Amino acid sequence: MHALIRELFPVCRSITGDGFRTSLRRLSAIVPIELHEVPSGTRVFDWTVPKEWNIRDAWIADAKGRRWVDFKMSNLHVVNYSVPVRTRLPLAELRPRLFTLPEQPDLIPYRTTYYHEDWGFCLSQRILDQLPDGEYDVCIDSSLEPGHLTYGECVLPGAIEDEILISIHSCHPSLANDNLSGMVVGATLARELSAVPRHHTVRVLFIPGTIGSITWLALNEAAARRVRHGLVLSCLGDPGRPTYKRSRRGDALVDRAAAHVLQMAGAHAIRDFIPYGYDERQYCSPGFNLPVGCLTRTPNGEFPEYHTSADNVDFVQPAALENSLALTESILEVLEHDATYVNLNPKCEPQLGRRGLYRNTGGATAPTSEMALLWVLNLSDGGHSLLDIAERSTMRFGTIRRAALELERVGLLRRRDSSERGRV
Amino acid sequence: MHALIRELFPVCRSITGDGFRTSLRRLSAIVPIELHEVPSGTRVFDWTVPKEWNIRDAWIADAKGRRWVDFKMSNLHVVNYSVPVRTRLPLAELRPRLFTLPEQPDLIPYRTTYYHEDWGFCLSQRILDQLPDGEYDVCIDSSLEPGHLTYGECVLPGAIEDEILISIHSCHPSLANDNLSGMVVGATLARELSAVPRHHTVRVLFIPGTIGSITWLALNEAAARRVRHGLVLSCLGDPGRPTYKRSRRGDALVDRAAAHVLQMAGAHAIRDFIPYGYDERQYCSPGFNLPVGCLTRTPNGEFPEYHTSADNVDFVQPAALENSLALTESILEVLEHDATYVNLNPKCEPQLGRRGLYRNTGGATAPTSEMALLWVLNLSDGGHSLLDIAERSTMRFGTIRRAALELERVGLLRRRDSSERGRV
Amino acid sequence: MHALIRELFPVCRSITGDGFRTSLRRLSAIVPIELHEVPSGTRVFDWTVPKEWNIRDAWIADAKGRRWVDFKMSNLHVVNYSVPVRTRLPLAELRPRLFTLPEQPDLIPYRTTYYHEDWGFCLSQRILDQLPDGEYDVCIDSSLEPGHLTYGECVLPGAIEDEILISIHSCHPSLANDNLSGMVVGATLARELSAVPRHHTVRVLFIPGTIGSITWLALNEAAARRVRHGLVLSCLGDPGRPTYKRSRRGDALVDRAAAHVLQMAGAHAIRDFIPYGYDERQYCSPGFNLPVGCLTRTPNGEFPEYHTSADNVDFVQPAALENSLALTESILEVLEHDATYVNLNPKCEPQLGRRGLYRNTGGATAPTSEMALLWVLNLSDGGHSLLDIAERSTMRFGTIRRAALELERVGLLRRRDSSERGRV
Repeated sequence: MHALIRELFPVCRSITGDGFRTSLRRLSAIVPIELHEVPSGTRVFDWTVPKEWNIRDAWIADAKGRRWVDFKMSNLHVVNYSVPVRTRLPLAELRPRLFTLPEQPDLIPYRTTYYHEDWGFCLSQRILDQLPDGEYDVCIDSSLEPGHLTYGECVLPGAIEDEILISIHSCHPSLANDNLSGMVVGATLARELSAVPRHHTVRVLFIPGTIGSITWLALNEAAARRVRHGLVLSCLGDPGRPTYKRSRRGDALVDRAAAHVLQMAGAHAIRDFIPYGYDERQYCSPGFNLPVGCLTRTPNGEFPEYHTSADNVDFVQPAALENSLALTESILEVLEHDATYVNLNPKCEPQLGRRGLYRNTGGATAPTSEMALLWVLNLSDGGHSLLDIAERSTMRFGTIRRAALELERVGLLRRRDSSERGRV
Repeated sequence: MHALIRELFPVCRSITGDGFRTSLRRLSAIVPIELHEVPSGTRVFDWTVPKEWNIRDAWIADAKGRRWVDFKMSNLHVVNYSVPVRTRLPLAELRPRLFTLPEQPDLIPYRTTYYHEDWGFCLSQRILDQLPDGEYDVCIDSSLEPGHLTYGECVLPGAIEDEILISIHSCHPSLANDNLSGMVVGATLARELSAVPRHHTVRVLFIPGTIGSITWLALNEAAARRVRHGLVLSCLGDPGRPTYKRSRRGDALVDRAAAHVLQMAGAHAIRDFIPYGYDERQYCSPGFNLPVGCLTRTPNGEFPEYHTSADNVDFVQPAALENSLALTESILEVLEHDATYVNLNPKCEPQLGRRGLYRNTGGATAPTSEMALLWVLNLSDGGHSLLDIAERSTMRFGTIRRAALELERVGLLRRRDSSERGRV
Repeated sequence: MHALIRELFPVCRSITGDGFRTSLRRLSAIVPIELHEVPSGTRVFDWTVPKEWNIRDAWIADAKGRRWVDFKMSNLHVVNYSVPVRTRLPLAELRPRLFTLPEQPDLIPYRTTYYHEDWGFCLSQRILDQLPDGEYDVCIDSSLEPGHLTYGECVLPGAIEDEILISIHSCHPSLANDNLSGMVVGATLARELSAVPRHHTVRVLFIPGTIGSITWLALNEAAARRVRHGLVLSCLGDPGRPTYKRSRRGDALVDRAAAHVLQMAGAHAIRDFIPYGYDERQYCSPGFNLPVGCLTRTPNGEFPEYHTSADNVDFVQPAALENSLALTESILEVLEHDATYVNLNPKCEPQLGRRGLYRNTGGATAPTSEMALLWVLNLSDGGHSLLDIAERSTMRFGTIRRAALELERVGLLRRRDSSERGRV
């Protein structure tokens, strides 16, 4: 995954345009992704799909022709969505259009002007401080014209039409953790899932942030109503501990599944929903209120490299990417396999020993596998699912699930049909 | 407010009598207070309004005429409600009637004998230890005769008949924090409230402790049933952190409002109801169970100056009084303005930028004002009030309220009519 | 109680057999215990009552006749339920049948083979390491034949048929804390209870672990349905702090009563139910789900002496036994006397002073006894029981109960009839 991040890093992505398309076509080599094109001007709820933006070059040069700021060195140098410009002006007039990070003087910030036609440059404070007075030639060789907004979709059909939604914003230019890490983890996850039978239909979306999820929701309300569980993925490669931000509901199955998986995995953080962050803002708007949480390592805005040129390929660690993928898969294991079983021998414990499931010699303490059997038997009253049992026993969902399958095999447990409601 | 405490400090108040009347007439210069007179002997639930007590002088003098204890030096010296006495007796017989604080040997305690006809004196342990053996002349020039119990009421009509009750016991003699601080904060609060439009009717009661609230409740059951929110005020001038004691209900709006205001304000304490303290004991008796909490700084009995001569004018700090007034006003702001709004654009976020409510340049973190807008939009599903939103966002109620008014102004929010019930 | 433990310690108990019978007959000198005999082969839910085991002697001797392991020195030396053996075999063949505790090299472990016909010995690692190579004579002079499983029952009838169940496993050989401490505390408790009038019927069971509770439940389903509250007792003599393990329900009255009593008593631990431990595993199986918790000091498996020869008479402390008995009695006091009262003067406080229940001189802080009266009056709205009030006031149940009886005496409180339902 890290090699792919390295490969995609130089591409200048935005919420529309060829950089976005190029990136998704490259991901399609991992898992087939269908690209959808939505024309500029399309009304999507309160918003309008913007004009398409493309850029070829941009620079600021002094009177001697020396280029102080150059898009070819870093695509962060141009304010994303800047209108085309070709002009000469004195430093004093240029200055209000130059964005820096005075407290991180070596870094270039990432700035955008999607919904307000304007232009500007981002550069390090160090360079800004060196700019001699005088006239500057400014060039932004971009285009902002009617075109399309693109989004990518990988739909993996399951046994049921109910969906698990994985949503990944893919519109940031040369930023590695936010959002290339999410893109490569999401594509790899989709490839893994495509190789196994699925209970739920899984939909992986690669979209531009905010306007992309709004557009998808506006054009796919029926599909949105089928979403039973969802995760927004981003910032999955930094060295921080994994962090799960709950859905607006707070107690959805995905919230409990993610909390369980992270608790079992070690150091982590669980946070309540706030209406700021990534596309969970839209999925969790009150008119949808979908059970969609957000999995990151260090959340947006909380690592110093966030939205700067320091969020680069070196900041992202292969081990963190692998761990993030494994955590996501473990969460999906819960979503796919949580079920309720009924103990067919509910009065007292069954004699596990004569079924080969219990030690012959008594007196010493029970091993984990026996504890899992006892927990499943004790709580399988029709009112507790496997996740309920995993939570209450503080044992891993996988361990509890294996115990349930074992007990089902020897006829002590029966999987409850989804048509049976309420507690027995 | 501090100057008024200084002025009222020397007056010898009690649960009846002219000291109480004099004090309330002085407060009437700040805000009009109506005085009610209830005759001695009136049955009020399980109690009877006692005889009226008045006192002119009291002293203990030795055989040489030296006054060792003198009411004119401190009205705490006489046990409040002592019957008239004029006698001579040896120290050994006098001793059982002398109250001191052996562990605070320089202080005079405050003691009462309201419901048991008796007499006694309070003095410092230091003086008691110096009393030479011998005969003493004792004088208590008081009267205990049929008369009236007085209470004061300032009713400020609002748009609705539902009431906010502010209750302040005003029966303590020369004690500054308990209860002069409550009296001056309450009167100042009433003056402020009288100058603005009110949603609720506000009733500020100045009453003698225990018997006063029992009397008011017995004679005003209909008004009591209109109380939607209430606060008992006392001990508002000491340097301790603010403390809110919840109503017996524990989750009334006033409990949540006070907890929110105090949390936003910094160091504070929130406590559960106990059936001891001030007049909340009566308002929260099971037959009424009114949503009345109690706001103090350091609660009764928990500061060493409590019910002693050290609870004097110097113990009360002007800044603490001002802060207590401000906190009370903030609690009332919540009670007056909490309301539920409905997001008129519930599917995805509305585009705030084109309404001038959002930054044009993206990439940096959202300021507080934008966060408030996002919180209000996200939670205004008809099931969350402004206080709900303030609590969940941990933003100030005032900030959340301003955001709601802003969104209402641009047509994105509608105030929910009180006739609309349940969640949308 | 400690003397009786000393007396019963040498007896070789097991889940069946004469050691068990002898022990219960000795306890019958304290309180009458009825012995029930259930034939081997009886089906009890998923289990079958095993053959009866009895043992006279067992040893391992080397070729020179030296006895390295001798049942007469400690009955832990033989794996409990070993089949009869008389053979000679080399050390290499004997070794897999020898159990030690390598990390506690001086101690003999306790091991059993109830449900798998086999034989073996337990010894210290120290002895095992000294065994010279060569042939060994092995003797286990036991019998395993059709017979009976014995259990003891002491039923103390109460005013109602609803039952409190006290269950004590009594099947361990020379182990003092687990389970002799439970046996002597249980018998002493039964004797104390037999001397006073009881509201509930109290049933004290002395049973073999696991198979005993399964047998009792299978043969007494009707009685099991009458159990309203229950406690499993074990490990009550070690110097650790008292520990209560909640029933599977978690919020049964016995759970609340035990938590309250332990909280009032000082250092303690409260734990959630897990389906491992003692006979609460069976009582709390989902087909019964009885409100049965477990009171111990240090729980099973958590003290280093557990299931070893170090769990001996010296490990058990008289003071701990007395304290455990007192705690159990306090829990039963709550179960027996919890009730709901109604304040007959619910509007404001009644005037306690004129009933002799309140100080005459006011101004100082209320003593505990007055606080208890105020709590009972305030919360006796028909919706709070005495335990509710004790919990909320953090006052002892006994103090609250005495206050209620006092208020009932002066006509301020009425005990609510059990036919009155819901909150007033």
